[in-house]
Amino acid sequence: MSAASADVSDAPDLTRSRRIVLAHGGGGQLTDDLLEASVMPRLGNDVLNDLLDAAILPSVEGHRLAMSIDGYVVQPWRFPGGDIGQLAVSGTVNDLSVSGAVPAGLALGLILSEGLATSDLEAIMDSIAQTARHAGIHVVTGDTKVVGRGQADGIYITTAGVGHVPPGRALGPDQVRPDDVLVVSGPIGEHGLAVMLAREMPEVQSVVRSDVAPLNGLIERMLETTGDALAFMRDPTRSGLAGVAADLARQSGFHVTLDETAIPVRPEARHAADMLGLDPLEVANEGKVVAVARPEAAQDLVDAMRSHPDGSGAVVIGRVEPERDGICELHTTIGGRRVLQKPYGEQLPRIC
Amino acid sequence: MSAASADVSDAPDLTRSRRIVLAHGGGGQLTDDLLEASVMPRLGNDVLNDLLDAAILPSVEGHRLAMSIDGYVVQPWRFPGGDIGQLAVSGTVNDLSVSGAVPAGLALGLILSEGLATSDLEAIMDSIAQTARHAGIHVVTGDTKVVGRGQADGIYITTAGVGHVPPGRALGPDQVRPDDVLVVSGPIGEHGLAVMLAREMPEVQSVVRSDVAPLNGLIERMLETTGDALAFMRDPTRSGLAGVAADLARQSGFHVTLDETAIPVRPEARHAADMLGLDPLEVANEGKVVAVARPEAAQDLVDAMRSHPDGSGAVVIGRVEPERDGICELHTTIGGRRVLQKPYGEQLPRIC
Repeated sequence: MSAASADVSDAPDLTRSRRIVLAHGGGGQLTDDLLEASVMPRLGNDVLNDLLDAAILPSVEGHRLAMSIDGYVVQPWRFPGGDIGQLAVSGTVNDLSVSGAVPAGLALGLILSEGLATSDLEAIMDSIAQTARHAGIHVVTGDTKVVGRGQADGIYITTAGVGHVPPGRALGPDQVRPDDVLVVSGPIGEHGLAVMLAREMPEVQSVVRSDVAPLNGLIERMLETTGDALAFMRDPTRSGLAGVAADLARQSGFHVTLDETAIPVRPEARHAADMLGLDPLEVANEGKVVAVARPEAAQDLVDAMRSHPDGSGAVVIGRVEPERDGICELHTTIGGRRVLQKPYGEQLPRIC
Repeated sequence: MSAASADVSDAPDLTRSRRIVLAHGGGGQLTDDLLEASVMPRLGNDVLNDLLDAAILPSVEGHRLAMSIDGYVVQPWRFPGGDIGQLAVSGTVNDLSVSGAVPAGLALGLILSEGLATSDLEAIMDSIAQTARHAGIHVVTGDTKVVGRGQADGIYITTAGVGHVPPGRALGPDQVRPDDVLVVSGPIGEHGLAVMLAREMPEVQSVVRSDVAPLNGLIERMLETTGDALAFMRDPTRSGLAGVAADLARQSGFHVTLDETAIPVRPEARHAADMLGLDPLEVANEGKVVAVARPEAAQDLVDAMRSHPDGSGAVVIGRVEPERDGICELHTTIGGRRVLQKPYGEQLPRIC
């Protein structure tokens, strides 16, 4: 969950339609609006109000706990580069890791459709097991429900995670300062593009593959190397790099600039985005992290990331400016500038 | 999740059908079979293997953590006595509480259907807020996904919970000893019957209402009163009291007897069960707890439970015998005896 207060006055007011639309689930501005109008007035509290991907619970005897949950409804459930099982482990591990927590356990909630082939369920369980092993984490509890044929599209998975936050770790938009630099761990947009191509253009031969991966290993290395000089991390999932950068500007209150020429996009991803009419900046990643660090630590951070297989494409892509306007601005490849907004609605339904 | 090894040789082998059927989600023997065949060989580990409703994670610095997850797909989402929101909070709070944990935070995963009225979503959020307040727990994080019209029947909710386990608390089937007594907190079967009547016989006027309630207050009082003399607790949800008693016998290894005349069933619930052709013993409760305690502590335990609004109907219903055959036997009202088995499949689809 994340919230925003920016006004998108040109867009139709779908909140007032008083019915849920697909776009409410896109992780963009409209999701934020729904949360602000219908959820937060009812459930708001000191922890939930932060609307981070993982919550840090009040400490018991000096022990801080992080908790996270995510639903996975990706369609199709198997796509180039991964499947819903890899996604269900990686997404939750990554939400915990970017909060600074060391993942301690996963809980797996399965909603299956009548008629799902047991072999498909088993393939997904294999995938969960393999990804969990790779991340060094256990599924510690679970639940299985079955609904009627035609519902739930075969399988929905909701994964929750808990982790321990080591003493002294403080990450968040409130830790960000002017002159800090933004780093991304590699080429963007590939998860969302791989899923959309598989679903919308199955006839197209493309080499774009999802980047889905658990990043706790990479992130632990980043924290070890950079320590206090690391101010903030987020995984750019739904609403993509644009969403993370716009949220960072709004939540920190500073002006954030991104340099489009520095943002890594593989040629095949750019080609796929052009075919689908999408901006790679707004497309979900499932194996990337955006970090904000003090300028003097930036080179060490990038070097440390590049030394890890999941961060081999790490580069500096932007900067935090001293102006306190809460706006994110993209310096484009052709020398222009544009304000980067959090995508409004559901550009990409059912990609995670 | 829970597992069983009992052989139900008369029943059709639905596991071999190699497709998921509704009955795989019933929380009965067939759910156990699916877990044993398709999930546990892949995901098994020391914690998950216990297959308890809440997992106790390995302690960090002497700190034990409990974690739980449950999916809620009840149909209709509003039923006499409650709704999916109350269920989503109560079920997860209860799973943590019966493990001996003090609930610390809930995570809420929403899967909404396109077309759901925002007013319905808001009614459910109100209900979640009210139940969480009643239980003294916060929703600390969440996630929202939207799927197409006709999928997810309006709303599915998956709730995860974490809790702290106070030092020294040890509850579980391995703590159970001969001569221990079984206590239930009140009349059984009402949740499942209320939902089934609402769905299958909407024309019938019945006063049966779901018992859905968070029991952490009652359970804390039980633990305070009875201390080490409390050996085991479970909430008899899917597969009902029969499922809990059969699991208890199997998991503890002892012979367990239940006295049918002592088991409280309200007349209207018995009437509803007769109409629906169901055995109240096998029907889900969402606001009841079954406890096993040392015989010398039983009266104090029952008194303490009766002093709490959620335990006012508490009674002793059975006993742990010294025989080590792992069988649960019901002494029937007409003086007979029958082996109580965990229900096989999905007698009651979509009741939670």
